[in-house]
Amino acid sequence: MELHSELDKPKSNCGIVAVHGHQDASIYAYQALFALQHRGQESSGIVTSDGKDLHRHVGMGLVSQAFPDLSVLNALKGHLAIGHNRYSTTGSTMMHNAQPFLVNFKDGPLAVSHNGNFVNTRSVRNQLIEDGAIFQTTSDTEVVLHLMARSKNKSIAGKIKEALSILKGAYSLVMVTRDQVFGIRDPRGWRPLCLGEKDGAYFIVSETCALDLIGAEYIREIEPGEILAVSKDGLSEHWLEEKAPRAACVFEHVYFSRPDSKIFNENVDRARRKLGKNLALEHPCDADIVISVPDSSNTAAIGYANVSGIKFEIGLIRNHYVGRTFIHPEQSARDFSVRVKFNPVEGVLKGRRVVIVEDSVVRGTTLKHLTKMLRKAGAKEVHVRVSSPPINFPCYYGMDFPTTEELIASGKTVEEIAKYLGVDSLGYLSLEGMVGAVSKDGGFCKACFVGEYPLEPELGAKKIL
Amino acid sequence: MELHSELDKPKSNCGIVAVHGHQDASIYAYQALFALQHRGQESSGIVTSDGKDLHRHVGMGLVSQAFPDLSVLNALKGHLAIGHNRYSTTGSTMMHNAQPFLVNFKDGPLAVSHNGNFVNTRSVRNQLIEDGAIFQTTSDTEVVLHLMARSKNKSIAGKIKEALSILKGAYSLVMVTRDQVFGIRDPRGWRPLCLGEKDGAYFIVSETCALDLIGAEYIREIEPGEILAVSKDGLSEHWLEEKAPRAACVFEHVYFSRPDSKIFNENVDRARRKLGKNLALEHPCDADIVISVPDSSNTAAIGYANVSGIKFEIGLIRNHYVGRTFIHPEQSARDFSVRVKFNPVEGVLKGRRVVIVEDSVVRGTTLKHLTKMLRKAGAKEVHVRVSSPPINFPCYYGMDFPTTEELIASGKTVEEIAKYLGVDSLGYLSLEGMVGAVSKDGGFCKACFVGEYPLEPELGAKKIL
Amino acid sequence: MELHSELDKPKSNCGIVAVHGHQDASIYAYQALFALQHRGQESSGIVTSDGKDLHRHVGMGLVSQAFPDLSVLNALKGHLAIGHNRYSTTGSTMMHNAQPFLVNFKDGPLAVSHNGNFVNTRSVRNQLIEDGAIFQTTSDTEVVLHLMARSKNKSIAGKIKEALSILKGAYSLVMVTRDQVFGIRDPRGWRPLCLGEKDGAYFIVSETCALDLIGAEYIREIEPGEILAVSKDGLSEHWLEEKAPRAACVFEHVYFSRPDSKIFNENVDRARRKLGKNLALEHPCDADIVISVPDSSNTAAIGYANVSGIKFEIGLIRNHYVGRTFIHPEQSARDFSVRVKFNPVEGVLKGRRVVIVEDSVVRGTTLKHLTKMLRKAGAKEVHVRVSSPPINFPCYYGMDFPTTEELIASGKTVEEIAKYLGVDSLGYLSLEGMVGAVSKDGGFCKACFVGEYPLEPELGAKKIL
Amino acid sequence: MELHSELDKPKSNCGIVAVHGHQDASIYAYQALFALQHRGQESSGIVTSDGKDLHRHVGMGLVSQAFPDLSVLNALKGHLAIGHNRYSTTGSTMMHNAQPFLVNFKDGPLAVSHNGNFVNTRSVRNQLIEDGAIFQTTSDTEVVLHLMARSKNKSIAGKIKEALSILKGAYSLVMVTRDQVFGIRDPRGWRPLCLGEKDGAYFIVSETCALDLIGAEYIREIEPGEILAVSKDGLSEHWLEEKAPRAACVFEHVYFSRPDSKIFNENVDRARRKLGKNLALEHPCDADIVISVPDSSNTAAIGYANVSGIKFEIGLIRNHYVGRTFIHPEQSARDFSVRVKFNPVEGVLKGRRVVIVEDSVVRGTTLKHLTKMLRKAGAKEVHVRVSSPPINFPCYYGMDFPTTEELIASGKTVEEIAKYLGVDSLGYLSLEGMVGAVSKDGGFCKACFVGEYPLEPELGAKKIL
Repeated sequence: MELHSELDKPKSNCGIVAVHGHQDASIYAYQALFALQHRGQESSGIVTSDGKDLHRHVGMGLVSQAFPDLSVLNALKGHLAIGHNRYSTTGSTMMHNAQPFLVNFKDGPLAVSHNGNFVNTRSVRNQLIEDGAIFQTTSDTEVVLHLMARSKNKSIAGKIKEALSILKGAYSLVMVTRDQVFGIRDPRGWRPLCLGEKDGAYFIVSETCALDLIGAEYIREIEPGEILAVSKDGLSEHWLEEKAPRAACVFEHVYFSRPDSKIFNENVDRARRKLGKNLALEHPCDADIVISVPDSSNTAAIGYANVSGIKFEIGLIRNHYVGRTFIHPEQSARDFSVRVKFNPVEGVLKGRRVVIVEDSVVRGTTLKHLTKMLRKAGAKEVHVRVSSPPINFPCYYGMDFPTTEELIASGKTVEEIAKYLGVDSLGYLSLEGMVGAVSKDGGFCKACFVGEYPLEPELGAKKIL
Repeated sequence: MELHSELDKPKSNCGIVAVHGHQDASIYAYQALFALQHRGQESSGIVTSDGKDLHRHVGMGLVSQAFPDLSVLNALKGHLAIGHNRYSTTGSTMMHNAQPFLVNFKDGPLAVSHNGNFVNTRSVRNQLIEDGAIFQTTSDTEVVLHLMARSKNKSIAGKIKEALSILKGAYSLVMVTRDQVFGIRDPRGWRPLCLGEKDGAYFIVSETCALDLIGAEYIREIEPGEILAVSKDGLSEHWLEEKAPRAACVFEHVYFSRPDSKIFNENVDRARRKLGKNLALEHPCDADIVISVPDSSNTAAIGYANVSGIKFEIGLIRNHYVGRTFIHPEQSARDFSVRVKFNPVEGVLKGRRVVIVEDSVVRGTTLKHLTKMLRKAGAKEVHVRVSSPPINFPCYYGMDFPTTEELIASGKTVEEIAKYLGVDSLGYLSLEGMVGAVSKDGGFCKACFVGEYPLEPELGAKKIL
Repeated sequence: MELHSELDKPKSNCGIVAVHGHQDASIYAYQALFALQHRGQESSGIVTSDGKDLHRHVGMGLVSQAFPDLSVLNALKGHLAIGHNRYSTTGSTMMHNAQPFLVNFKDGPLAVSHNGNFVNTRSVRNQLIEDGAIFQTTSDTEVVLHLMARSKNKSIAGKIKEALSILKGAYSLVMVTRDQVFGIRDPRGWRPLCLGEKDGAYFIVSETCALDLIGAEYIREIEPGEILAVSKDGLSEHWLEEKAPRAACVFEHVYFSRPDSKIFNENVDRARRKLGKNLALEHPCDADIVISVPDSSNTAAIGYANVSGIKFEIGLIRNHYVGRTFIHPEQSARDFSVRVKFNPVEGVLKGRRVVIVEDSVVRGTTLKHLTKMLRKAGAKEVHVRVSSPPINFPCYYGMDFPTTEELIASGKTVEEIAKYLGVDSLGYLSLEGMVGAVSKDGGFCKACFVGEYPLEPELGAKKIL
Repeated sequence: MELHSELDKPKSNCGIVAVHGHQDASIYAYQALFALQHRGQESSGIVTSDGKDLHRHVGMGLVSQAFPDLSVLNALKGHLAIGHNRYSTTGSTMMHNAQPFLVNFKDGPLAVSHNGNFVNTRSVRNQLIEDGAIFQTTSDTEVVLHLMARSKNKSIAGKIKEALSILKGAYSLVMVTRDQVFGIRDPRGWRPLCLGEKDGAYFIVSETCALDLIGAEYIREIEPGEILAVSKDGLSEHWLEEKAPRAACVFEHVYFSRPDSKIFNENVDRARRKLGKNLALEHPCDADIVISVPDSSNTAAIGYANVSGIKFEIGLIRNHYVGRTFIHPEQSARDFSVRVKFNPVEGVLKGRRVVIVEDSVVRGTTLKHLTKMLRKAGAKEVHVRVSSPPINFPCYYGMDFPTTEELIASGKTVEEIAKYLGVDSLGYLSLEGMVGAVSKDGGFCKACFVGEYPLEPELGAKKIL
């Protein structure tokens, strides 16, 4: 039996990049995608411009699979580029949805990459189709392009502005034309996007870790509502009309982004450690050791350990070679899929009262098995601490959750969840504790925790990218 | 050094197929594409409909490479299908131009495959772009779809009619929607397309050899100007508005189609043998043996042998494993590329006066080398007979010739060509001899021979598909 | 359902090559293997020597698949090389049996390629194993190497001589050491092997068509019983001790070799045409046309036509793209596998009395279906003429037949076979007619026709390579 | 430019497994190899026995690449199996050296897998070749098989004993015959090997983490000098003649093994934490935070933090997607290859005095770049602590070091090394501190630290597997 192991986590967004002003823009776009690999593993693609033609290559799988040799990058000529990593959806590999998207319209060729989700594409799309538009993909990105093509505005920035006055949602976008690249962020700033510079070339990337790999200096965030255009004349700022309070996705700090990145003007690492600290304050525990579910919860676990004074230990080893594996029909797929990713360290756990810190719980399936595994390895007590509140509501802004029914927190008290998981105690970080950790000034979206939606989705809006 | 061997022939058109009414339509579409492999080797694709959704798979290379295992075909569910083989253009493999083309528009999903060439896409495309259309490919097919999407006509057949009243050219098209397949032929009937039936299922294919492989019975041609719709209610015929005299591509009989096919209501084999017979009458020769440039000229050579009374022999062996090969820098690429395809049979040629029959000559490069090869193998005399007239003009209707300057016949007398080739004598079939062989009733396009164009191309019309 | 189409023919031997004296020996070995592709399609490999080290690459499939890019050939450094094409056995792909075989022994590295079959390996192998030898493959070639390694003889040629005084059978071998290549043929000369030269470099190949592609001049056959050594000092001839009458495999002329090759000092084409002529003399027929089962029977059919005075026509079109295909469960695999390879030309066959010439019949399955196909296409009568006698006995010398029970001729009269095939008449060429065609001086093995074995196989000798 | 990133570490040994008594032994062997992936990434292979035949599959790359689908495992029939992961050597992929090795000899088929290195193969091999043996690989394993084949001993265990009385070295071996599997460890017990059980089936694996993944119970180590045979009659123990003091490779605890494994009767995790603790006692530091070079030094760093009382932090993020990447010619390969693997966490490092714990230093290249990286991220001081002594001497027992000249410690004082690395202070764990951490009873090989070799290598013994 074939087994595709997946973590019990919200599915990641995508990773995007734009490059302007380096003669081998494709190499830098490639490296940025490499650094942003954690944001998407289904497909990867780059479009470059040499000032005259746009060149495109997309491939399935990891960046290293999509770009198997240097000749592929060398064929992507030009000093402008955008790139895209698409996240992995279960079971389906949709080559024709792979990004960046490249089309020809009135103003010449244009390519777009997209991280996020629109909430009113259904009605806009239907209207466009009614007007005679044809759609080749199911991607929202194509809707943006149709709106731009129909705009009477003279400039590209003007067309973007017009298109995004119609489409609503959570989005960070990069675009490339023959001679310009653009970085755009929705008015609420849901997804991260920032600007860097190196030797006169500009880079727009989802997270700063991509700038670090390239060796570029961080300049600033693309602001919510900003359309930043980069041309040979330098940077020029344009603004979307809609003004709205910030609603950054808190899960970027909790889980999605790399801890060595800075997003939303804050180090992820610092925010994540603070989440752990607040968790220790809210839900202290009488235990011998603190361990994490590696690697994403490591920093929060250290924060918990520091505040609680309980020793931090490595109690689970993560196998990084995981992907597809095979099991025997007699083996339990659930059991195996956890065991292939995590192995307990008996010497650490035996006879100990263990606090295990996890950043988020979706279905709870992995955590249930981990608990069994810890007990089997000799843990005397297992106390789970989660560095975010229970997830109770669907996201319309770019996260891929299971249905509400599958969410472990849905309709259950914390005690019921603890019982289901088989743990000695369970503590979720409070909404206040979480928001207090990630921001000085509020401005985060809490929809999935409390069901208050900063931007109302249209009826039947799809929940995922 | 890598060497891609190509014959010195006009490049083939594409091969297309539509299936209606068999629960595993994809298998039959696959088999039809297999039989039509000679019409296109660059890419291959199938779109099916299960009544609700359309499913698409395209891949590069031969049918067997594009469909590497049965699971790919099984995933293409449905009882309706269309398929497409795309011919090989030198050096470029354009995955995003691979067909069938699948889009969503007002009436739902629609897929199209196309064999031929339009002559006014440039202006129509520009007008569409001006009106806000976006184009994702450089393929003419996309223009057809935009026109259909913008049509206010209620029925699909009506939309097709409207779109094709704007676009002019040489085309055989197949389309599939959720519940119908269509077969369409331009008003002049440039490219072949015919209808077959088996166990209640209908098949529309480029050549009858595809019906033979499937095991279907030939019913009739799709008529020039016909839009044949197949639905669960059976066949219904619609007609394009434009009426025009027939202008079938004579090269289908001369070279493109398989000799076991029937096209334009005539057996290719019979036409091809007649070409050879007429050639023998027009250009007799005092020689010991008749040989052909295998395999496409075999039948014409036999016709020549039968009328001339000179013995037919196999003087050249064709290697069918050819594709990409490697040579040493010291070796001549030209020489090798001919030698790897053809080897002379010394026992046949030595001391003989040889008539070699070739169906068509484009640049003359291959023939020049074959002549040298025959002489080296001991041929005492080499007389070339070509079963079609000299090619002097570009084609705008789906054939891919080199530039006029590269055509061997361009601006040269037959004597000059003979001298260039190094042959003892050279005879081309006359226009009358050719037309007399392929048709009882005329109606063939002679543009590439005499420069009279049945349909004026717009300025800058591209010459190839 | 997946379908692997195979012709109803004896399975081919392998093709081998050795190169000495060209700085890029691997390119020439590659080209020779390309020309010898018809002798083996399962795997392909080359070993080179740069005077110090031996370099090896083997891969599955066709030459073009085993050597997918030039860098593979460039990595095979050296001015000496041997190469090997292995024939395709049904269903099994045995990478570790792929040749050439490369080992290290007392005298340094040594590689061997082999075409043929030994008849006493079982006992020799058992004896070697008893003495402590280990075997890594099931290939006979490894036995040769063990015997050479154990020889006390000082020279490589001496070791070869000693090893082949113990092993008996039908074999053409090529070997390469650091500074020599060898070409060896068994005392009876069962399989072809010849020598060519170009610019001071020597080439030893299975068939002359490989010399033609390389551009080398044919010098002579490697004689039966000869060990030809090529070193920087030129050619030196050595001889095996065993002397025996010639027993060349007549099937090389009938079917295996390419018609443009010269083997056993005779043009294959000439022999094959003579087979057809003798067939016409022995089995004349009152018919309208002669057709062949393309391509291997083309030459014999032309011979038949010339002598009989009946017109030669192309009645069956062979599809050269065949390999693996897929069929629907409702379709008959037998029917389809013939149809996918051959399609009748209706215009040629309709209303005609047809003589169809086939070079050999093993199980008769293909011929039975072809007959049905011809009748369906309108043939009034179908007369089969086979240019070799009925096959009745197993081969121990390198051909791969089915079991005796599966042979159509086994225990049946010609009338019974004709009835089974459903033909109007059937004629096999007589043994005398065949031998008279292929040789002036006799010396052919007739084991599979009459059961007289020139070299007695040991009990349980395997019948195939 | 293509860049293959490698850590500056001793190259790992191989991973091996044997399975007896489960009807789908191949699946379990596969899973064990999956868990042992860290021990070798160049190639992976399995041989099974169904009681009659042995079946083999080997492939290049990771386990998931070598076994791309379940059908490959299903084809490996039988209830006995052995498997092997081979470690990655730079630049060369030697398919023919891939293990397990499968041969036929006197007693039937036999397959072997090997972890370690022999020290006298050169002379033994030469003697065997002198006696007429042929070698197909450069692998030591083949020597073992030749010696077994030549043994007059009646039983397999006896033959193993005899062969290993001639060959000396460091080895853990598994073997499979038609009806037995064997696990063998050299008299000094250099490499780990242990026994587990599940549902009556036995498993012999390099590390216990493989038992954990399979779900088997750990029973015991294969003892130094033991030949453990498993057949349908259960376990039987045999012993090599040579007796010698234990000389386990201390690097298995320091770096090679997974921290969740138990080897040499000790939890790796416990040993590794103790290394860090001893390091803190020997080399205390006045600093703000302790960080590790992830992931292998994590546990030692936590040990250091716990004893020193300095806070443990995550200061470097490790990118697990690394493999092959591409860089621009203007970029520094050295810099990039470190940056692509590690990114500093600025928020943690800025303004801090940092202790960085590394388990071992070979060339020092990575550490030098990490130091620069930490300083650039704002670290005020950088203090390096290494949880093993300086490496000064070559290993002949299975580790792959660079030449002595390339070793950073070679001929330099600790102060000189510190200066070269550019660090504020540097401390290596002492030999006593290390041995005290990993064992209660001594018995470790210290050759690479002090140059005392437990088993003298013959002149010219190769240093790597």
